[in-house]
Order: sequence, then C-alpha cells, then structure tokens
Amino acid sequence: MERTLAIETPQKIGEEVILKGWVNTRRDHGKIIFIDLRDRSGLVQVVFVDAKEAKELRPEWVVEIKGTVRKRPANLVNPKLATGTVEVAAKELKVLAKAAELPFDTGAAELNVSLPTLLDYRSLSLRHPRQQAIFKVQETIIEAFRESLKGQGFTEIQVPTIVPSVTEGGAEVFKIKYFGRDAFLAQSPQLYKQIMVGVFERVFTLAHAYRAEPSVTTRHITEYLGLDAEMGFIDSFGEIMDVIEKVVRDTFAKVKKENKVELAFFDATLPKLAERIPRLKMREAQEIIFKRTGRDHRQEPDLEPEDEREICRYAEENYGSELIFITHYPTKKRPFYTYPDPEDPQYTCSFDLLGRGLEWVTGSQRINDYEMLLEHVKKWGNKPKDFEIYLQAFKYGMPPEGGFCLGAERMTMQILGLENIREASLFPRDMERIDFRLPKKEAEEIK
Amino acid sequence: MERTLAIETPQKIGEEVILKGWVNTRRDHGKIIFIDLRDRSGLVQVVFVDAKEAKELRPEWVVEIKGTVRKRPANLVNPKLATGTVEVAAKELKVLAKAAELPFDTGAAELNVSLPTLLDYRSLSLRHPRQQAIFKVQETIIEAFRESLKGQGFTEIQVPTIVPSVTEGGAEVFKIKYFGRDAFLAQSPQLYKQIMVGVFERVFTLAHAYRAEPSVTTRHITEYLGLDAEMGFIDSFGEIMDVIEKVVRDTFAKVKKENKVELAFFDATLPKLAERIPRLKMREAQEIIFKRTGRDHRQEPDLEPEDEREICRYAEENYGSELIFITHYPTKKRPFYTYPDPEDPQYTCSFDLLGRGLEWVTGSQRINDYEMLLEHVKKWGNKPKDFEIYLQAFKYGMPPEGGFCLGAERMTMQILGLENIREASLFPRDMERIDFRLPKKEAEEIK
Repeated sequence: MERTLAIETPQKIGEEVILKGWVNTRRDHGKIIFIDLRDRSGLVQVVFVDAKEAKELRPEWVVEIKGTVRKRPANLVNPKLATGTVEVAAKELKVLAKAAELPFDTGAAELNVSLPTLLDYRSLSLRHPRQQAIFKVQETIIEAFRESLKGQGFTEIQVPTIVPSVTEGGAEVFKIKYFGRDAFLAQSPQLYKQIMVGVFERVFTLAHAYRAEPSVTTRHITEYLGLDAEMGFIDSFGEIMDVIEKVVRDTFAKVKKENKVELAFFDATLPKLAERIPRLKMREAQEIIFKRTGRDHRQEPDLEPEDEREICRYAEENYGSELIFITHYPTKKRPFYTYPDPEDPQYTCSFDLLGRGLEWVTGSQRINDYEMLLEHVKKWGNKPKDFEIYLQAFKYGMPPEGGFCLGAERMTMQILGLENIREASLFPRDMERIDFRLPKKEAEEIK
Repeated sequence: MERTLAIETPQKIGEEVILKGWVNTRRDHGKIIFIDLRDRSGLVQVVFVDAKEAKELRPEWVVEIKGTVRKRPANLVNPKLATGTVEVAAKELKVLAKAAELPFDTGAAELNVSLPTLLDYRSLSLRHPRQQAIFKVQETIIEAFRESLKGQGFTEIQVPTIVPSVTEGGAEVFKIKYFGRDAFLAQSPQLYKQIMVGVFERVFTLAHAYRAEPSVTTRHITEYLGLDAEMGFIDSFGEIMDVIEKVVRDTFAKVKKENKVELAFFDATLPKLAERIPRLKMREAQEIIFKRTGRDHRQEPDLEPEDEREICRYAEENYGSELIFITHYPTKKRPFYTYPDPEDPQYTCSFDLLGRGLEWVTGSQRINDYEMLLEHVKKWGNKPKDFEIYLQAFKYGMPPEGGFCLGAERMTMQILGLENIREASLFPRDMERIDFRLPKKEAEEIK
C-alpha cells in the first residue's frame, strides 16, 4: 500500500491508509491516546484505543501507522487544522526511530525559547511548523526571483566564491589558505556578474557572500545569500529600478498565492505597494526627514538606520507604499565601479530599495568605459593587477550596464516581520556562532 | 523606438529597427562593409554602404545601429544563421564602447586556442557562441534538476559553506581564518541536507563544494557546484535511484527541447537510455570486466577510471544504456554515515551513477539510528563533538533516509563531450589557477 500524506486524508474517508511521520504531540487519556502526526504536508490526528504500544510513544518519535480515515463529528472538528475534519483510527503501529527526551515543548503553537536556544537546538527547532514556514516563504522568494528575471530575458549563471584578491575593502574579508598561498572568500559576486554582461547581457546568480564584519547586529550575518542581477544596454539607471520593481511585484504575488498558511503563522501581510514605488534622491530624503523630525542630517553622506525608518514612514503616509527607492548616494560612499551622475559627479547613479525601514536591495549603474574604470580602480586605492580578469571584460568592449543585489534573508525577515535576521537563515553564522556558540576562551584571544 | 534583438529581425522585414550588440566579425569590401552583430539572442548581418564611420569598427566594439530589415536574395541566404534570410541595411551608427585589439580571432566558428589561453582570457573567450552554449546547457541542467525534484515533492533549501570542523577527511579541506579562530569550507552540504530531512523530509540544494585536492586532473576542480538531494521515509535505497532516474530523464528531455542549437555546436547527442538504467553490484561489475578484458580487479575495493569506462561500454552494448548504476561499494571506501548492507555489512547500500565512462552521481542510504551513527562516527576516527548539530538531528528522531549528489560541471561536460571539466566552469579554480595562473614563485614554496 502506498503511503498517504497527512494532507490527503480528508479525501480518503472510509479508506485504509498508511501514514508516516513524526509524533508532534501526544495526549494520553488512558484507554484512548491521541497523537498529532506530522509529515511534510502538515498534521493529522491519529487515535489509538487500547493500544499498549502507543503508550510508549513520545514527541519526535518516527512512526508508520496503518489505520482508517474517518470523519470527525461536527462538534469535534478542529478548524485550525487543514485536516481538522477527519482523524485516523490506528490499527497498526511501527516505530521507525525513537527520539531522546526533548529540551523544550515542540508541540506548542509557538516555540517559547530564546534565540540562543533556538539556534543551539537548530536541528530540532527547525521542525516546528512556524520555523518551517520561514523557509517555505524563503523558497518562494528565491523561486520568484528566478522566474521573474528569466521572464525578463536574464540568464542564470554560477560564479565562484574563492577569489584571488580583496576587491571591496580589506578588513571585512575572510582569508583562506589555498595550497600554501592566500585566497579570499568573495564579498559578493559583483565582478563576475559584471564580466558576464559581456557574455549574456542580462544575468543573475544566487551567490553566497561573506562579510567578516566584527560586529553583532540583528540584521547582519557573516554568510548570506545574495540574489544578484546585472544587465547591459541600459539607457539610464532607472531601467534597473524598473526591473527590481517587477521582481518585487512578482515575488509578492507568488508569496501571497503560495504561502497563505505560512504568512498566517506570523500574522504577516505583504508590504503595500503603490502604482509605482516612489523614487527620491538621498538629499531630498534628508530634507524631508529634517522637515518632519527636525533632525538635520542634510550634510551626512548616508542615511542612518533611524533615517531609513523615517523615510519609509513618509513613503507609506504619502504614497501608500511601504517600499521606497533612495537614489544618488555620494560618490565617496559607493564602490569604485559606481557610475558618477553626469549632472553632478559628487553623486552617483546609485540607489537602495528600502522596505519597512530596512535596506532590501542595493544597486547602481556601473562605469563601463575601460579608461575611466581603470582610473577609478586606482583612485579608490586598489591595484589594477588585482582586477585583471575584471578589467579585461571592459577592455574588450562593455555596453552601459548596471545591476543590483537583493538579500534573501533580509527580504524574508522583512516580509514576515522577524526581529532578527538569524531567524531567516537555516544555519546562521556570525562572529560568535558557527552552528554552535564558538568557545569563549578562543573568542577572548581575538582582542 | 524599442530595441530589436537579432533573432527578431526575420519577423520585421521592411521595418526600421534599432539593434544593439557587439561587432562579432567585420568584412570590409571597400564601399560596402558587412558586420555580424552579436547580441544575447544571436547574430545578424548588418550592411553599411559608403559609411566612413563603419570603417573604424573592430571586433567586440559595442554599437547601436539604426537600419531597415530586408530580405536577402535566395542565393545569399545563410543557412547556418538563424537570421540568415535577412540583413539590416544600416542608416545610423553609434559606438557605445570600443575594444582593444583582440589577442585571438573570436569570429571563427571555433576558438582555436589552448586551454590556458582560453582561461587567461576568460572574460573574452566566454563571449564566443560555442563557449556560451556550454553555460546555456548548464543552465538548463540546473533548472531541470530543480523542476524535477520540486515535482517529486522536494523543498529547496539554502545551507552554509563555512563549517566549524572537518567532517569528511582532513587533508582535502580549505581552512579559513574566522575572527581569530579556524573554520573550514564545506566539502559538501551533506550533513546539513541530512539534518533537513528531519524538517522537510525531501530536500535539495545547489551548493558550492570545495576540495583542496593537491592534484591536477581533467575531471576535478577545487570549487564545484553540487546538485544535492536527500529524502526520508525510504523503504530501500533503490527508491533513491528511482528519483535520480527521473531527474536524469527530465534533464535530458529539457536539454533536448531547449538546447538544440547548443548541442549542435558540439555535435552532441544526449546519452542513450534504456527503459530502465541497469543496476549492477560493484563485485558483479568487476567480474564482467574480468571476463571482457582479462583485467582481474575482482579484489579491488573500488572501480578504477579504466573500469568505469569498460563497464559503461558493457552497459551500452548489452542494455543500450550509456548510463549505469554501480551499487554496493565496500564499507571501508565509503563515508561513516553510509548504511551497511544488512545482508553483508562489508558492503554498503550505496551507488554511483556512471555515464559515458565517468561518475556523474554518488549516493547512498544513510544510517538513521542515533546509536549506530555515533558508533560509526567514532569508528571512522572522528570526534562526536565535531558532529554535534548533525547528531542532534538523529538524537531527536530521523526516519530511514538517503540521498545523492550530482556534479553540475561533470554532467555538462559529459553531455557535451568536453575534454576538460574546466571548460564546464565559468571561472574554474584549481591548484594552479584562480582566474589567472597563480605566481610560479609562490607555487614552488608549497613543496
């Protein structure tokens, strides 16, 4: 007999089925024992009557159950469960694997544990339906990103993460021993995706990116997933924002359609979008913030976190949009490859997309003229030799181009309203943790 | 006016269009100059008459051309070009970017350069249609893998590549400096995908994997893309091979459908498949090889490259299949987590899928019993402490499970008949190269 998934039981009333899964919860009423069985499709209630072997069952035991699906009486229907109209009367039980006693209650609607405990017991805590939901939403976000860009003429590429030199600021990079030499972990797929514009014009890649930032915040991890794209033959950097806007709309539509249940776990609604996501120059944003709050950051070279939150509030109040593009960041705050604004080269053809108070996307038009790029490499204090293969792409003809990077964990976090980005990473890495908290003694040696 | 792609020109005869792309080749007939313009969709011929500015054009210059599409006379149709029935009579030319003089002829049907040159000029050589084709096929392979597994109930997950300890053999791992401590680059996503069986039952991931093998062969690179999958609630490891078989068939079907042009560049045909991919125990394979060749490897613990080629020939001749599963490799040649064959624990419930003489896929059933796994961790000379988060997943109940890994570059290479795996990696890394050949002097210091 083929296995039946929990979710399929309401279609099999009166039939004999085989279920396989984990004991999610167990309620012992003496003669009668109820278990909620969990499998990849969800939960279903199983009832044992006079079954000695079921007495032994404990949460997270893995079982195979043969039984008959039956309709629950109207007064016993559980509206919270997708399978709440039925239950399975068990006939046979086979234990496939036992589980040790659990460190916390995994059967509750919410896991009532601290973040360190959540992460220390990651292999267990991820099984909780609410935790699973985070990564189901993330899966949809990633799929939507790919589908949207494929639909817009982009080619998916695979780029390496081991790189020969530090190309985007020295301190925040991880060093590798590479056959007796030094190599590094890429801080982003930036240079490679730009090279590939010369090949496929429009490319995207899902790339692990590594930042050795020696700080612990709620919105940074040391290894994250960048959803990166780059496109050639642009007339202006507004076209890049147009592509992003389409990606965002496609993503929201897909999450809304495919993750109703998951969104409900978090009482989450997708961010409101106006007809068009507003676009505002950074200096204009600072002026608005000054007028609204009296906070005078009009000379600052960047938006601070409180500014980002304020301008998002402004966008929501004035445009009905929880997302806003901020454009034209100062040249000195952006990487060497950023295209200077022809009208005022102190500023760049760059942008961030902010959503619900946090940066989601960063991007810009890039310098595509070889001589100008070479000049910028030097001006930013870099050695052209470290950029040989990159510069080669421009030496042999590169169209006007630009691109962007969207942080997968950031977007997941902001859609679901999570408090810490670590919740949006299956196995988050930070300065103090790789799976487990790193030993204290060694940590002190760093200082 | 909107840009027209090369491939769209045959539908626009008589219309004025704007083309954008690279000068692929240029033929100067004095008064008349022909260029083949290349964009992401392919090539189209453009004709300049009495156009001084077109005299300057050189290969790889990036241009924007306004002109009129016209039908070519029957005797001038180029059947090798998808747009060979038309050409564009140029009216206006705008140079978007110039290119330096090329180091080799990029306009020829094949790039006639050595592998080191191909890689030294990677940003240029990848633009050649034949090189592009490799990565278009790779893109399809990766998409097919995802689509096939999604269709089989798998969830896509994202797992980290920075790991806290060495878990699969010590010498071949890259070490990272991690905030003053040591960390490592994952040799595979193995432990994390197994953990995730406890969460989603069936998972897959596209994971960069790193091998610090101090050898240079035609089939190894130090950073590669693993297409990894893992599945729970299996009754036997044959089910894993069933899933792979479906993935392979789905992949071949998709490549056949979407990459006709690309396959033609390499005169490539997809491997023949019988009704069912044959499955043979390693010892049976050795017996067959002995009978066929007189080569007595019947006591060897593994198949050597020449054995793999021979058994593939056997499968093709006897089953009409260019792919074959070899099963039941010896316990001592497989990782600690491999499930021993209950009928003969010297061997394992493991398999390789060989195709056209080379290993494509490796996989097995895994040990899911916590106590047995713990024992194996120790028996293989590992410290349980290094496997804490992994062992946790089994401590809290894990169903019978298994999985596999398919090398994206290997599959690309074998489908297209490439001689070196480096050709199937956009920016291949090996012992002697990260983008550029590593400096000799330092290389000598290793010894």
